[in-house]
This record gives sequence, structure tokens and C-alpha cells, in this order.
Amino acid sequence: MRRWNGWGDEAVEHVLHEGALAFLAGRLGAGTPFPDATFEAVCAEVPASRLPPHRLVVTDAATRVRHAHGQSLPDWLRLRYGRVGPVPDGVAYPEGTGDVRELLDYARAYGIALIIHGGGTSVAGHLSVPDGRAVLAVNMTRMRRLLALDSTAQLATFGAGVLGPDLEAQLRTHGYVLGHYPQSFEYSTLGGWIATRSSGQQSLRYGRIEQLFAGGTVETFGGTLRIPAFPASAAGPDLRELVLGSEGRIGVITEATVRVSPLPEREAFHAVFFADWEAAIGAARTLAQAQRTTGLSLLRLSNAVETETMLALAGHARAVGLLQAWLRLRGCGTGKCMLLVGASGSRAQVRHALRQALAACRAHGGVHVGSRLGDKWRQGRFRNVYLRNTAWRHGYAIDTVETAVGWGGVTDMMTAIEAAARQALGAAGEPLHAYTHLSHVYPQGASVYTTFVWRLAGDFDADMARWRAVKDAASGAIVDGGGTISHQHGVGTDHAPWLAAEKGAAGIAALRAVLTHFDPQGLCNPGKLLMEEGG
Amino acid sequence: MRRWNGWGDEAVEHVLHEGALAFLAGRLGAGTPFPDATFEAVCAEVPASRLPPHRLVVTDAATRVRHAHGQSLPDWLRLRYGRVGPVPDGVAYPEGTGDVRELLDYARAYGIALIIHGGGTSVAGHLSVPDGRAVLAVNMTRMRRLLALDSTAQLATFGAGVLGPDLEAQLRTHGYVLGHYPQSFEYSTLGGWIATRSSGQQSLRYGRIEQLFAGGTVETFGGTLRIPAFPASAAGPDLRELVLGSEGRIGVITEATVRVSPLPEREAFHAVFFADWEAAIGAARTLAQAQRTTGLSLLRLSNAVETETMLALAGHARAVGLLQAWLRLRGCGTGKCMLLVGASGSRAQVRHALRQALAACRAHGGVHVGSRLGDKWRQGRFRNVYLRNTAWRHGYAIDTVETAVGWGGVTDMMTAIEAAARQALGAAGEPLHAYTHLSHVYPQGASVYTTFVWRLAGDFDADMARWRAVKDAASGAIVDGGGTISHQHGVGTDHAPWLAAEKGAAGIAALRAVLTHFDPQGLCNPGKLLMEEGG
Repeated sequence: MRRWNGWGDEAVEHVLHEGALAFLAGRLGAGTPFPDATFEAVCAEVPASRLPPHRLVVTDAATRVRHAHGQSLPDWLRLRYGRVGPVPDGVAYPEGTGDVRELLDYARAYGIALIIHGGGTSVAGHLSVPDGRAVLAVNMTRMRRLLALDSTAQLATFGAGVLGPDLEAQLRTHGYVLGHYPQSFEYSTLGGWIATRSSGQQSLRYGRIEQLFAGGTVETFGGTLRIPAFPASAAGPDLRELVLGSEGRIGVITEATVRVSPLPEREAFHAVFFADWEAAIGAARTLAQAQRTTGLSLLRLSNAVETETMLALAGHARAVGLLQAWLRLRGCGTGKCMLLVGASGSRAQVRHALRQALAACRAHGGVHVGSRLGDKWRQGRFRNVYLRNTAWRHGYAIDTVETAVGWGGVTDMMTAIEAAARQALGAAGEPLHAYTHLSHVYPQGASVYTTFVWRLAGDFDADMARWRAVKDAASGAIVDGGGTISHQHGVGTDHAPWLAAEKGAAGIAALRAVLTHFDPQGLCNPGKLLMEEGG
Repeated sequence: MRRWNGWGDEAVEHVLHEGALAFLAGRLGAGTPFPDATFEAVCAEVPASRLPPHRLVVTDAATRVRHAHGQSLPDWLRLRYGRVGPVPDGVAYPEGTGDVRELLDYARAYGIALIIHGGGTSVAGHLSVPDGRAVLAVNMTRMRRLLALDSTAQLATFGAGVLGPDLEAQLRTHGYVLGHYPQSFEYSTLGGWIATRSSGQQSLRYGRIEQLFAGGTVETFGGTLRIPAFPASAAGPDLRELVLGSEGRIGVITEATVRVSPLPEREAFHAVFFADWEAAIGAARTLAQAQRTTGLSLLRLSNAVETETMLALAGHARAVGLLQAWLRLRGCGTGKCMLLVGASGSRAQVRHALRQALAACRAHGGVHVGSRLGDKWRQGRFRNVYLRNTAWRHGYAIDTVETAVGWGGVTDMMTAIEAAARQALGAAGEPLHAYTHLSHVYPQGASVYTTFVWRLAGDFDADMARWRAVKDAASGAIVDGGGTISHQHGVGTDHAPWLAAEKGAAGIAALRAVLTHFDPQGLCNPGKLLMEEGG
């Protein structure tokens, strides 16, 4: 059963061993656990639904509570403290395009706001329920079938509600892979990836969702938008790019055609350590700018604090201790940074790609430690996020922010984000543990992904204030440093106040014109992406 | 001096030798030359300008005639027959953003329509002057400087009016290359490439203009749209993609930031022949779908008639005869198809890429003939287009259409386009010589680029009718076969009637909403991209 107030499956626990807890306590002080609100208590407070009856709409409190929030820290605070706030008045599970069109007609007839749910994994407030109006959540996960596979053109069409593992399982039986692995992979959907411009861990090989989304169908109040899957086109502005990042504001993505690849014969992930950040980022940039010829599928560079934190939380204290001693002998002591290098393809391609990449790393002073840490990363790639549950149980909050910036600005951006957040919480007398990695690299620059850990106060308002202080400070640092307010999480409500800094007044006005065109009544996910006018 | 009624520099002639003319006469009958209208005669008929005076606007007849048309066949027919039709009332050459904003204010104040000119090379009617209203042509070519170069992030910012060779020359002094080589390269501009979603001959390595255009500035009636050059972003719909393909309808692209690469150490182009189309397209698809690892920069596959035509028009009859005899011995006789394979990079990369590609070609029955034909292609890559001038002088018209379609549909599309055009002209009792190549390949499919040669009637109306018959038939075949109405030339006026077939009613309505938002008075390049409403 899926957790109602946290990440993932209730049966899965990411245990924090004694050493890990000691590490956190050393950085932040001991956390104080406190009890969460119960699901029953929260459900008991759900008000009556305001929706007129409809054959597709269910209105039981449990289902509605499960669609009230995503996975952002403020979402968690509301659920865990039992301060859930507005919940949708009902939930519909369309099974086909006809159902979706019927729901659009229903919404228009009664002025009902719609929030489209994929897997409910947003960490930017995409699913927050607006107050003071009737709201229907539309859960897309029953539209999940592989509808067509063109193996000559390597194109697959799916119902947009398909979850990551289901999508890959359906493709695998035909020998294909999409290769889109955001950390939310196990619970996020193809439609959600498109609506939020998601990026996967192996985007270096497979591309971001922008490169994978070849065409599709969107049901809108202004009719059906069908986008054919051309290999390329010069026929005017690309409508896919209005759908990508539309965050539920223009209608319902019902079907999507994606570019697939033959399953790779082999995948390998190796770890390389560098003595310091400067050497490490030099290697990462070199490899990123040679990407046309490297054939790599992954480059993931942790800064010194993230490297230290990962090793401290990994368990296996003895093995880690030996590794650290050996690395010290090789010149990688305090301040060392870990780079993960992945390659996929035929055996020969993987061998060739790794040989080239490891040679480039050596030229930057890198120390190759083999594939063991890479294998660990692969095993845990979708499990690390469970750490949020465990940390919470021990009295700690975990939140992340992310951006992308040109290579010349990466280090300054990382420093500024970490410092701004630390200062913001420091003003409230609390320490903050911050660490950063670059998870997506491009010839022009990299994503900068910063994780924050701090102590929970045990009080809703105080914890919301702590989150707000960290979020505002970090977002301000991103915008001030010329970064995008999101490289992979999207805008939602949480980033909407910072969007104008990059789109400009003319850009915001153009986007608003598009949204108004598709949704003149303002029923589609109001307040997300663009703030309410005047907001 | 640039030709006023044909392609390129007046000093450059592409001579057709006797054998080439005999080849055309054998296919189409002898052409009948006839005299063109003179520049002086055309200028003498230019009416008085309707524009109120402005310090930036010149109104002499010669300048206005030179901005009346692009390079499509109907453009040529109008110029060559002296049936020029409406010309702009004046031409402005802005030298900076201030000038552009001043021109926008002037246009708005007086209700003047604007046509933005890059190099004037459109072959889709982007530059046609609407009748019955005051029109100002804005020539952007003075805004041509390299404004910034970030070598760490490999980003260069140019004035959008920079011509291809000038752009590459400015980059080359810093050791960089953009690598965008449309056939119009010598006379087209960066802003024009962006506005029409252009694609270059080596897009396999460098990407289409969509991949190269990282950000920029557009002056619009609704203010300045500034798009920052992030490496990637999930912050809502991508505004670059509204600018790309906007065809002058939303404002004036003044500056563009592009992703550049270090100059490659080496480039090589090799030719491979196949006995027939099926074998050749099999090899092309294999190489395209392995593009992540091939490192190729060019794949260009000619069908049998194009291969025959290229060899017949090449000159060097004796060398070509020997090549053909040798190829016949290797199984490549009538029906043989030529594939050009290009690679760029370090010497080792080029060697590696060619070795892999040629091995794949051999596996499909390909016969490698070395780099001589490839070198010839490289030398003539921007000169072949001069053939249009020479053919005209001998009484022949040349026109092209192009689309893109999935691999499974490429052969049918090629056959359908050629047959439809042949039938359309056959109905008027004229033969048509048609041949096709795939110039851009993707894992999902390829562009299909068909050239038509037919005899000129020597009469404006008759020749316009022949063009119309060929264009309508070919465009109908494209749309019926599920192709895009343009892979690289854009929409303009000539393709606008077919745009709704791929965008759909909902898509056209959305695009119209965007254009209306940016340009409520309808002053920006009216009638291009989208037909006038009700049209």
C-alpha cells in the first residue's frame, strides 16, 4: 500500500544505522521524533463534496485525502501535522478519451476546477487544491496501455497515465527501452513527465523528456490537440513545446508518443574520486563537452559535503573506512568529490566509452575505484528517496532545490544556494546541513541540485516557517545568480513567484495568453505555473 | 553584386556542359531560352512610396525591388517576367535595438506592415508583399556583430542579421564553429534560420537550429522578450520554441545566443554506392538509429534518379564513365543509389566513425568508392544552387519540395511526391524530371527532399500555372502521406494552406492566439505562416 503522508510503499523502509544518525546529530543536533496525524483523523475532517453527481466521480474521504497533496515538504507538513487544508471534492479515474472529454464537459458546465494527477509525486506544489471552489482531481493512471509500437521508426504510443516501471515493462517485452529515470520513476507517469518537463538520471544518453516526447494528444476545452510525431519539422512553432511544461493548465494529456531505443546489451556505472571540487568539475565539464563522442549515459558529480554525507549514510562502515584510507593515500582526503560515470550500449561501446572517460578523468587527477559504488548507486537509485521517511521519523526534514546554469557559474551558484539557505535558517538559530550534486550535464552547463537537512521543530507553523525561509533564500539565490528556477521539478505553486525573473514580463504575458486561450474560464489547475493574475 | 532576379553573385556561373544539356533534353525536350525583364524596366514601374518620412527608411525603387521577393520559383517568375507585383514602400536598415524599437513605434503609429528580411533567401514566400497596404521591409543585415563569447559554456551571442559566412568567420578567429550549413548558407542569416526553423547539412553532428538556438532577444509590440540561455530548464513552456518558426509574425529577433563547438580537427566525406534503393535505405536507417555512437556529421542518400542525374550533370564524362563501369562490376548498375557519409572531429574520431559506418554500409551491400565524390560534394555544397540560374537560361525551371516522415513511410512518400508532380504536369502535356534525396536522418525517420525540373513555357501565366500544378500535387501528396509540410524551408505563404493538416484546428487556433497576443494590429508579416483569417 502506498504511503498517504510520505514517499512510496509502506512496506519499504530505508533504515538509518547508528553511525548515520550520529553523523546527522553531529551536524544538526539530535532530532526529536513526534507523532504524525492519523489517516483516520484526517479523513474524519473532510467536508462534504460540493460536486454534482457524475458516474466517474468518487467522493469518499480516503480517496480525496490521497489526492490532496504531492510530495513537497510543505505537502508533507500539512499531511503529517493533520493540517491538510482543502481537499478535492471528488476524484475521477478516466479509462479513455471519451471519459476525459465527458469530464471536461462536466467541469465546464459546473465551473469545476480540475487538477490532473499522474503519480502524485510533484515536489513543487503542482497538486495543491485551491480554496473556495469546487475541485475535481482527475487520476490518469488507468490510461496506461501501450497503444502502438512502430519498431521501424522506434516510436511507442502510450496512455499518458502509465507509470514508469509499467511503461518500461511493456516496452521490454518488445526489446525496447525509453530510458527516462527521474528519481520519482516508480510512482510518476509519462503524462506527468511531459507536463512538468522532467529529466531522467540517464538523460545524457536518452535525452530529457523534451527529446523523448515526439507527439501526442491533449484534450482541451478548445477541442482535441493532436500533435503528429514527425522526425523533425520546420512548420512553424512546435506545439509540443507548449504541452511540455504546461502543468495541467491547457488540458489533459491523454496519449503520448515517445522515441524508444533497443534495450542496451550492457550498462555500467563506475566511481571516480577527485582531490577537490575544482579538479572534479574540470573533469565533468570536459566529459560533458565531449558528449557527442563519449557515448556516456550518466555523469553525476557530488560536492565534498555530499560525498562525505553519502559515505557516512551508506552503512558498511568498515568497507567505507578502508576505501577512505586508500583514497587518502592516493591524494583524496577531506574535500574529495565523487563522480559517477555511466555507459550503456553494446559491450564494445561500453568498454570504449568507459576507457575514454576514465582516461579523461585521470588527466584531471581522478582516482578510479571501479564499479562497486556505481552498482550500489544503481541499486539504490529509486530507494534513496525513502530516506525522507526515515529522516522524518528521527525528527529531520529533507528538502531539495535545483537549477541549471552555465559552466562558468556552477560553482558560484552551488556556494550561493548553500550559503543562503544556511543563513536563512541560522537566523532562526537552527543549523542546516547542505550538500550539492550536478546530476545532468550539458556542453553549456549543468544542473545544480542541492539537498538540505534540518531539524523539525515539531510544530506546524514553526516548521512551515523554516521551510519558507530555506525555500525563499535558496530560490532568491538561484534567481540572483541567473539560474532557471527549475531544471527538472517544474514550477507548480512553489516556484511560480520566481518565474517572471526568467520569462520576463513579455514572456509571462505570452504564456498567460496561451493559457487563457485554451482555458478561458480558468478551470485547469489554477494558480500553478503562473500565479493568479495580480498575485 | 548580388543578382536581383536569381541566386547569388552575378560573377558566379554554374556552367552546364553539352552532356548535361543533352541529358535534360533527353528527359524533357529542348528548353527554349527567352529574355528576362531588365532591372531598369522593373524599377521604372515602382509606384511612389506611401510611407511617412523616417530617418531610417529609404524609398528608392532599386532598393525596394530588391526587397520585393525571396527565392522561390514563383518569386523568380514574377521578377524574370517583370510581373513584380507589390513592392515594399520602403526599406530600413536598423543598426541596433534602439533602431528596431523606433521602427516598431513608427509601424504601430501609422499602421504599417513589417516584413523582416534576413538574407532574402526564403523559398516558401516568406517575403511576399501584401497588396493594398503600406509595407516596410526591415533589412537586418547590419546587426551582425559577435556581441559575446562565453568559451567556458560554449555560447556565442550575435546580432541576428549576421550572414552564415560572416558568423563562422567571427567564430573561427576564436577557435569555434556553429556548424549550421543550410544550402542558403552564403546568403542567409542567423535570425532567418531561427524564424524559419532551418536545418543545416551537418545537422547530424551539430543539430538543427532548434538545438543550436539557446536564447535571445525579440523586440515585439508587447515589449522586449528576453530569453536566457539556460543549459536546460523545466520552468514551463519553452519560449524559444515560439520564436523558432515564428516567421516574422511576433516581432523582430535582434540578438541570438547559439551553442558553439571547438573547430573540428578534421572533416571527411566519403561516398558509398548501393545496388538499389532498398539496400541503401536499409544502411541509412541503420546508421541513423546508431547515431548516438557513430559520431557521423552527414548522411545524404540520393535515390537512383538523383544519383544518375548528379553523375550526368557532374561533367568529367570520362572519369564518371570509368566509375560507372567499375561500379557495374561490383553489382551497382542501373538503379544504383549514392550515400554520402561525413564525419568531423579529431583525426582519431573521424577514423573511428568512418570505419564503423563503412563496415555497416558493407553489411548492407554498400560499395565504398573513397572520398573523391565526397570532396566534390563539399566543394560544390553551396554552389549547386547556382544551377537554377543556368537551367533558367536554357529554358528549364527547377523547384523543390521537402518533408519528413517516419522510416516506414519514406519510400512511399518519395514515390508519391514524384508521381503526383509528374502526373500534374503530365496533365498539361509536359514531362517532369523528378529525383529525391534524404538529407537529414534521425532515429525516427528522415527528411525527403525532391527536386523537379521541367520546361519553362516562356509565358508568365502558363509558367505560374505549371508551378502551381506541381506544388499543389506535391504538397497534397505530402499531407496525404502524413508528412510535415516542411522539414527545413518553413511555411511562408506557399505552405500555409497545408499547415492545418498537421496542426489541426485546435493547434491553428492556439498559434493564432499567440500571434494576436504579440501583434494585435496584424502588422508583422501578415499572411505568412497562418493564412489571413477566413483565408
